Amino acid sequence: MQWMRFSHAGATGFGRLAGDQVQVHRGNLFDQPEPTGQMLPVADCQWLPPCQPGQMLGLWNNFRAAAEKNGWATPADPLYFVKAIGSLNAHGRAIPVPAAYDGRVLYEGELAVVIGRTAQAVSLADAPAHIFGYTLANDVTALELLNRDPSFPQWTRAKGMPGFCPLGPVIQTDFDPSAASLRTLVGGRERQNYALADMFFSPAELVHRISQDITLQPGDVILCGTSLGAMPMKPGTEVQVVVEGIGTLANTYG
Amino acid sequence: MQWMRFSHAGATGFGRLAGDQVQVHRGNLFDQPEPTGQMLPVADCQWLPPCQPGQMLGLWNNFRAAAEKNGWATPADPLYFVKAIGSLNAHGRAIPVPAAYDGRVLYEGELAVVIGRTAQAVSLADAPAHIFGYTLANDVTALELLNRDPSFPQWTRAKGMPGFCPLGPVIQTDFDPSAASLRTLVGGRERQNYALADMFFSPAELVHRISQDITLQPGDVILCGTSLGAMPMKPGTEVQVVVEGIGTLANTYG
Repeated sequence: MQWMRFSHAGATGFGRLAGDQVQVHRGNLFDQPEPTGQMLPVADCQWLPPCQPGQMLGLWNNFRAAAEKNGWATPADPLYFVKAIGSLNAHGRAIPVPAAYDGRVLYEGELAVVIGRTAQAVSLADAPAHIFGYTLANDVTALELLNRDPSFPQWTRAKGMPGFCPLGPVIQTDFDPSAASLRTLVGGRERQNYALADMFFSPAELVHRISQDITLQPGDVILCGTSLGAMPMKPGTEVQVVVEGIGTLANTYG
Repeated sequence: MQWMRFSHAGATGFGRLAGDQVQVHRGNLFDQPEPTGQMLPVADCQWLPPCQPGQMLGLWNNFRAAAEKNGWATPADPLYFVKAIGSLNAHGRAIPVPAAYDGRVLYEGELAVVIGRTAQAVSLADAPAHIFGYTLANDVTALELLNRDPSFPQWTRAKGMPGFCPLGPVIQTDFDPSAASLRTLVGGRERQNYALADMFFSPAELVHRISQDITLQPGDVILCGTSLGAMPMKPGTEVQVVVEGIGTLANTYG
């Protein structure tokens, strides 16, 4: 199933994608939502982020190919940071050029896990049951802020600017990340194409490991990290993150 | 004014402290809440965190005395991380001993700013109007996780475990941080005593500077960083963070 959130005629809602229609639902997306009976043409809706995360975690150094190329050691544990909540953005919306920073801004096409049940100290075997589904993310990064201060890497600041976390377009509940690839197209040209099976820590392992220390709630999102090919964006460029079975997350920078 | 949140008779609420009573209010704490007329003895209430932050930021290296002693350079910008939302804790509650980590766990007594209005690119002159008030925090830290991986400091993980962010007991709206000191008592013995004026970046500067990059919302909290004297806690120890005019935040570890 593919779930989306939308605004339509001044109200927000959510529902199941069915072709070019959305089958509107009510209730809690993570706890047996019910169809209202209403169908809306997707074309009449504005896309919203597919869930309303209380927190968005992002992984660093989670792909073998990127680690090998960059000379990064194999991580013993998932290495993660937080995307500030104000960075949340939707499919089709612009990624604003930062007002107070004029350095390079990277796109990073990523798979994102959407948590469906409160996860605290979850076993690896139970982890999949805590994953509601998968969506796509662009983990936008103000590159030169990251290491501007040599004593303290500024992950929160560099990753947390307004609009720096596009998510969407949908949450796909039937998806096997071990068999899929993620592509990022920049101005229509393919710049990333990597197998999701190349992760050091699979989505289930991420939920298992992270939940030993950090409590995850329904709607929380884990961005699984990116692989090779993340590059600076020029204002006016459209970035598309594509995974077959989930869809295409498209945003223009600036 | 001193504001608190509480649970009482199975319900949660908030109100103004008036001696040993709480004057219950309804509505939005940050937008002209109204007294309900009900008064409750504080002794009959269970303390809750004084607000419900959407995000909690914490400062590193924000006190001159600590920087001098540790050989840290004067920061050009506020250096901050995110406390995971599941770390939120209340006055009087235990700080759980981590289940999946057996290293040292530090207390860090800190002043915390509570945001009252959405802050995005706020000028220094306008910053005070975005501060609703001040509360106290214990920025609990799993010390040995921070630098366990030499390539990536794990701030999110080391600072974000369940209960690692006690806040309270109240939000004081009439408080001048430039004239006060913060003390931390551990098992009744004073272990921290530092002037809040010793910050590199004052609360108003923090709101000004951070809001250039990260959007802050009403209820969000900025922990201003700690100074000298942060130490490991032994299970069973009570830690009290004390600022005259705000109160005492007390939590037992374990």
